[in-house]
Amino acid sequence: MPKTERHFGDDLANAVERTGNPVVVGLDPRWEQLPAIFTDAGPADFLKRAEAFEKFCKAVIDVVAPLVPAVKPQAAFFEEYGPAGMVALGKVIAYARSRGLLVIFDGKRNDIGSTAEAYARGILGRDGQSGWESDAVTVSPYLGADSLEPFVEVARDRGAGLFVLVKTSNPGSHMLQDQVVGETPIYRRVADYVEGLSDQTRGKRGYGIVGAVVGATYPKQLAELRTAMPQTWFLVPGFGSQGGTAKDVAAAFDQRGLGAVVNNSRGIIFAHSRPAYRDRFGEPRWEEAVEAATREMIAQIRAETPVGNLSTG
Amino acid sequence: MPKTERHFGDDLANAVERTGNPVVVGLDPRWEQLPAIFTDAGPADFLKRAEAFEKFCKAVIDVVAPLVPAVKPQAAFFEEYGPAGMVALGKVIAYARSRGLLVIFDGKRNDIGSTAEAYARGILGRDGQSGWESDAVTVSPYLGADSLEPFVEVARDRGAGLFVLVKTSNPGSHMLQDQVVGETPIYRRVADYVEGLSDQTRGKRGYGIVGAVVGATYPKQLAELRTAMPQTWFLVPGFGSQGGTAKDVAAAFDQRGLGAVVNNSRGIIFAHSRPAYRDRFGEPRWEEAVEAATREMIAQIRAETPVGNLSTG
Repeated sequence: MPKTERHFGDDLANAVERTGNPVVVGLDPRWEQLPAIFTDAGPADFLKRAEAFEKFCKAVIDVVAPLVPAVKPQAAFFEEYGPAGMVALGKVIAYARSRGLLVIFDGKRNDIGSTAEAYARGILGRDGQSGWESDAVTVSPYLGADSLEPFVEVARDRGAGLFVLVKTSNPGSHMLQDQVVGETPIYRRVADYVEGLSDQTRGKRGYGIVGAVVGATYPKQLAELRTAMPQTWFLVPGFGSQGGTAKDVAAAFDQRGLGAVVNNSRGIIFAHSRPAYRDRFGEPRWEEAVEAATREMIAQIRAETPVGNLSTG
Repeated sequence: MPKTERHFGDDLANAVERTGNPVVVGLDPRWEQLPAIFTDAGPADFLKRAEAFEKFCKAVIDVVAPLVPAVKPQAAFFEEYGPAGMVALGKVIAYARSRGLLVIFDGKRNDIGSTAEAYARGILGRDGQSGWESDAVTVSPYLGADSLEPFVEVARDRGAGLFVLVKTSNPGSHMLQDQVVGETPIYRRVADYVEGLSDQTRGKRGYGIVGAVVGATYPKQLAELRTAMPQTWFLVPGFGSQGGTAKDVAAAFDQRGLGAVVNNSRGIIFAHSRPAYRDRFGEPRWEEAVEAATREMIAQIRAETPVGNLSTG
């Protein structure tokens, strides 16, 4: 199939059906929380830390690749170590793709015009098309429509996608996102714009290539937005360590069990330090803790949400 | 002076007074617009392009370092070429600092909690403190207060600063920034929050370490915000190719000629292709065009704004 026939909305639906679940594993490496095996060797300069991040993330990918549809590397933790960190990020992304995972580059990038286009061209598209070879990128909407359109254009050309911040999982999301203009909160204004973009880019499975970030910690808005955005994929952060449960995210899905992917970062990649897992596995068996936490989240979501209805293939 | 006694608001005031002008040269390299001398050699893969960006930006820095207080590398154009681009960005930043320039990392980064802290720790701070060794970073506010505070904390600890997007120079800024809640536009809500942060971090020269991005293309809002934000440095984009003139930015300054820095990217670094300069210099003398364009902008701003009142040192 030629590259241009790829469609991110369809690819995501197929990956969710293939694996039978919508779990996205967030690759948020933090030096202080890595299993000791990755931090024991030598001095901890930026290069060593970046190399440890690469090894750790690849090992996580080895565990989760057979289980989930996608991973979401968090650019910030790699950027923290400068160019060395970004080199490691590039290798992690390439490895995830080689293991058949979709890659959502979590960078919350945003700019205008040709600068937005440079971000989009740099991050989106595979097989040598882009600098970061990712399937999708998260984008911040404060700059307005002319900051989002360049991402949509590049994504469409390259069979990739984006997720626009709509209603985020943090308490501070109240400051701007919940402010009401006339009778419409700002997040809803962004939502309506995103749904329009999704409609214009709809694929065979009913969803567009422009998704929305909607936090698990606000179940009421999640339900409201599912209704308001019937053609928009949701990327749902806030599950696990931020307090969101499987019940909280149930409203994010359509009746087929599609329409949303749910991210979990620390709760999976650092499962070895969660009280419930520490006793069962201990740090030497940290990879088994990652697998158990992933399987547990999958089971919870399949039990408590329409994901249980998925026709897996 | 110990590092922790550095204060970005004071450093910027001192640099503006030392050079006698508030011009920030935007390092926005674009492959198609580079002088031919940088693009002639060999195949144009990402590595070659990134190396050309590095050489070009260093040559621009050599021209402008004696003239202006700061440069603003645009991360997007380096990210476009993946890890190779980011390695080049690191070298460009280090070179600018070695030439005595303040460096504003234009990345419009944003995230929450410890992820925002990772961005801040990665970008802000010099002398081996951070991965990118920059003096300031641009930040997007859609996620709210808990996305800005981590940047402020790290910046304060490291003698660095940030610039929060308030009212940007693009037409799309209307979509969210100009929406009115009660009687207050969203941009004004962000402005009031930023001014509070500036007040809490005020230095000896009267300005805080938390600045605001306010576009040259909206002179009325620029004047309104100058009054509303007396302790906040402005970073003013939109001069030159986006249509902003020296008269348009006059209201951004206080009576001493401080309080704002004005960015120009393409109008300076690609001056050789501006009609007025093409005939005078032609591409072989592209560095002379860069110098002439920089001096012209400085002269315009000194003639048309309170910058002419600067007590240069």
